[in-house]
Amino acid sequence: MPALPPASERVRLRRGVHNAVYDRHAILAILDAAPVAHVGVMTPDGLLVIPMAFGRTDEHLYLHGAVANGALRAAVDNDVCVTVTLVDGLIVARSPFHNSMRYRSVVVRGVARRVTGEEHVEALRLVVDHVVANWSTGRPPNADELRRTLVVAVPLDEVSAKVREGGPSDEPADLGGPHWAGAVPLRSTWGDPEPSPDLAPGIEPPPAVAALAGVEL
Amino acid sequence: MPALPPASERVRLRRGVHNAVYDRHAILAILDAAPVAHVGVMTPDGLLVIPMAFGRTDEHLYLHGAVANGALRAAVDNDVCVTVTLVDGLIVARSPFHNSMRYRSVVVRGVARRVTGEEHVEALRLVVDHVVANWSTGRPPNADELRRTLVVAVPLDEVSAKVREGGPSDEPADLGGPHWAGAVPLRSTWGDPEPSPDLAPGIEPPPAVAALAGVEL
Repeated sequence: MPALPPASERVRLRRGVHNAVYDRHAILAILDAAPVAHVGVMTPDGLLVIPMAFGRTDEHLYLHGAVANGALRAAVDNDVCVTVTLVDGLIVARSPFHNSMRYRSVVVRGVARRVTGEEHVEALRLVVDHVVANWSTGRPPNADELRRTLVVAVPLDEVSAKVREGGPSDEPADLGGPHWAGAVPLRSTWGDPEPSPDLAPGIEPPPAVAALAGVEL
Repeated sequence: MPALPPASERVRLRRGVHNAVYDRHAILAILDAAPVAHVGVMTPDGLLVIPMAFGRTDEHLYLHGAVANGALRAAVDNDVCVTVTLVDGLIVARSPFHNSMRYRSVVVRGVARRVTGEEHVEALRLVVDHVVANWSTGRPPNADELRRTLVVAVPLDEVSAKVREGGPSDEPADLGGPHWAGAVPLRSTWGDPEPSPDLAPGIEPPPAVAALAGVEL
């Protein structure tokens, strides 16, 4: 059983409770490892789930998009769910009934708020720097670009994680049987930077970008 | 512009329309490459997005879980959204405003239906065999296991994809400037099978499982 209680009943795990993680440090580490989140919003024509880049502070998760982005507009002042998942492998049990995945996932629930002023620019920096810090090594956004970008904040209050590691949990009666059991790891690794074909010669990638090569999620 | 129209207005892309994919063959190929989907459902305490394994025929996408699974129960006879995303890299533009990702994603919208009888067993086989075929090499499910498993089908009717490849699309005024531009590929690759520590000696992984090693998503 987890040592800590969930932050709210809405994020308490009901199934696979032994895989529940309510430790804040562990939850933030999963968010930091994931390149995208899946954002669920209620739109005028029904429920929609869209992959989005994101950033965070200790208090908020930030999402950004064009001002005309329908999913993001639908999120403002409404209850949303932001889910982040890293798949680490396939678990093959003796009985397919007990097949599973190795994964790390986080669920954030809450009401999204439109962000303005200084927090708007800072949130954009956090989204850009989430996978790798490159905000300060690029051309800064101009006023028009900032005006065309919508940023929303979701509080990191109602949040929980679920982590599945290891191998299968088969039925006792199946142990010692003729069927194979184990896992197949899935590794996601950043490669070497690929310069844009129209890049002028002699411009090297920022050190933080170059340092991504070989890093695993 | 895409050559084909979207299957419904609810899945027509409004943003990044040049990255829209409505070709059915291409959409199914993305579904087949992805190990998990993110399933959005409306639950009694609000919108929820949960990662789930899945399978498919040409007509339906199948999701499974315990009969007590709250998200799956909430899906039955209700409008859901099933989104599948593969992240293929980070695109670093000269201006962070034009940063992006390389990705392949599919959005499926529709009403989920509870599956019974022969379709129930066949759907379970499709979910189990989705990443790698191992249903027929494991111990078949018994009546009790089947009874404890809930399967829902979502029609593959309202479906579209979005695919972003290549590198950044910077502002003309930024080309020739001092900032680096390019992409960092992210590769997700299956590794060698890891036998369960309690596996009896001499049992080899099924050929399909062993063949996963080195395969990229």
